[in-house]
Amino acid sequence: MTASNAQWLLRRRPQGMVTLDDFEYKESPMPSADLAAGDVLVKNLYLSFDPAMRGWMDDAPSYLPPVAIGEPMRASAVGQVIASENTAMPVGSLVQGMFGWQQYAVSKSSDLFPAMALPEGTPPTMPLSIFGGTSLTAYFGLLDVGQLQAGDTVLVSGAAGATGSAAAQMAKLKNCTVIGIAGGEEKCQWLRDECKLDAVIDYKSENIEQRIGEICRQLDCEGINVFYDNVGGDTLEAGIEHMAKKGRIVLCGQISAYNDEQPQPGPKNLMKLVVNSIRMEGFVMIDFMDRIDEAMNDIVTWVLEGKIAYREDIQEGFDNIPATFFRLFAGQNTGKQLLKIADPE
Amino acid sequence: MTASNAQWLLRRRPQGMVTLDDFEYKESPMPSADLAAGDVLVKNLYLSFDPAMRGWMDDAPSYLPPVAIGEPMRASAVGQVIASENTAMPVGSLVQGMFGWQQYAVSKSSDLFPAMALPEGTPPTMPLSIFGGTSLTAYFGLLDVGQLQAGDTVLVSGAAGATGSAAAQMAKLKNCTVIGIAGGEEKCQWLRDECKLDAVIDYKSENIEQRIGEICRQLDCEGINVFYDNVGGDTLEAGIEHMAKKGRIVLCGQISAYNDEQPQPGPKNLMKLVVNSIRMEGFVMIDFMDRIDEAMNDIVTWVLEGKIAYREDIQEGFDNIPATFFRLFAGQNTGKQLLKIADPE
Repeated sequence: MTASNAQWLLRRRPQGMVTLDDFEYKESPMPSADLAAGDVLVKNLYLSFDPAMRGWMDDAPSYLPPVAIGEPMRASAVGQVIASENTAMPVGSLVQGMFGWQQYAVSKSSDLFPAMALPEGTPPTMPLSIFGGTSLTAYFGLLDVGQLQAGDTVLVSGAAGATGSAAAQMAKLKNCTVIGIAGGEEKCQWLRDECKLDAVIDYKSENIEQRIGEICRQLDCEGINVFYDNVGGDTLEAGIEHMAKKGRIVLCGQISAYNDEQPQPGPKNLMKLVVNSIRMEGFVMIDFMDRIDEAMNDIVTWVLEGKIAYREDIQEGFDNIPATFFRLFAGQNTGKQLLKIADPE
Repeated sequence: MTASNAQWLLRRRPQGMVTLDDFEYKESPMPSADLAAGDVLVKNLYLSFDPAMRGWMDDAPSYLPPVAIGEPMRASAVGQVIASENTAMPVGSLVQGMFGWQQYAVSKSSDLFPAMALPEGTPPTMPLSIFGGTSLTAYFGLLDVGQLQAGDTVLVSGAAGATGSAAAQMAKLKNCTVIGIAGGEEKCQWLRDECKLDAVIDYKSENIEQRIGEICRQLDCEGINVFYDNVGGDTLEAGIEHMAKKGRIVLCGQISAYNDEQPQPGPKNLMKLVVNSIRMEGFVMIDFMDRIDEAMNDIVTWVLEGKIAYREDIQEGFDNIPATFFRLFAGQNTGKQLLKIADPE
């Protein structure tokens, strides 16, 4: 056991694009192994990076309280128990939880998101990638919020991301026609070849609005029935333009806007929602906490049957934590963004 | 019977604000009284004016086909049958239908909206005002789209208009707390005194966003549960800012935008829909055609019990048709905008 606990703290609230100066590296004392009943001391192995974390840095009312200034940045992680007062999670076992940007964390049974043991034999990255919150988000967003029906034409933005690629392939599993929007030929190729999407739009080289229209005409469909949107801004506006009557727009996130210093104007065409009787609905995964087991059963089945392709983009090194986070907003990650801090012992 | 049929035709598609030059007055020949089985020849008595008619003038895909250039402007009306091949609507009976801006109309049984007889003894303006499409729109929008629950805090924009005032009072009937937004002290006074709203915001003299926040604090509520929006634009943005978790925004129309030459940017705060799990849903009344009888039963009951106040703003004279239409967009109408062309014989 080392004597110190390296941490990346939130130094200040970002103004616009998040930068390295918004964080502070600190060597804190190692947390005490003198634990209360139910608690565990965890050594972090892998950290998860999600666009929603950017929202947690702002001092604005949201579905979770903001990360406090001077606290380690909040993040999902997988770690190994090195001291335990919890029989379900003995020393040496792998656990997941909201352990944050630090080497070691005490996870209390009273925490909002307490540590959970990984099922025996689970590769340590999978609870953060395909068996993680991004897949659950895709599941509830598409099936519950989006009220997906077999035969629907489905549009997914941020389609090569962890949530987007899961949503797109779940729609394929449900016998829908799926159009994905992603940035760059490599991502588009993966969506075509591995995820088997019906059509892919490269937003870096194509006009999204025009291409959705062309593809709908080629597919001879009346428009988009379900639009699973991770992006917001112009992408959302382009999708609204081509929604079918009674279409559903699932607002999962707005990565195009998270780092705006001033909020950008919204879509100019909301009147389309009136004349075409369209529903646009936001959600967060924690709305569905009571149904996680049901969803995870389906997801595990699909993954084990090889029906959902996924990629993990695993960076390495504790020093690279902020830089790895920034990859999300530059669209650099190929698949679920993770970072490895240590190997299990 | 006169030998001619005065009409106001759509001369061209408006660019931005609709003007008199977009219409053309014409004396056309009287329609033939040589009718097919099921048809009636109608003399118009009262015309109805609705903001949605502005949308019908544009050449854009919508829930109804655009009015063709050179055709009489489409409008709801009440008239008297002067020739009939329909035993349900004998000569002399009062009927309602989409008879348009003209003195006389042939209504075919094959029309999208064929003539319907008025129930015996109905005052001829009521099927166009409190027993008309605006009240049905309020009913389905509030109860079905908005999923209103007793105890909800409800915000209504355009609250002194025909649809808004009906929606606001229906919400009161359902034991909700209701905040209305309207323009000018006279309208606000009517909403307070006659419609018994809990709070009223005058958008001409108050900051809407700030006032919604203040009123929510005074009411000690967690925010708006249902926002029935007729206005769009800044009003919509202000409402989004104060929606409660899992709130519902009913998009009935966007009168602030109908006459924009260039579409205006949408709300800057759509991310609130994500973090607060908010639904925003558009609709048109014809989505609910199969349930009109059910709704009308409720509405008639409430009106006869004196539980819904309403006002009719009745202008007069065939020449004043376009000017009466323009009153809607200047916010000049006090209550449902009608125009009287003739008395029944």
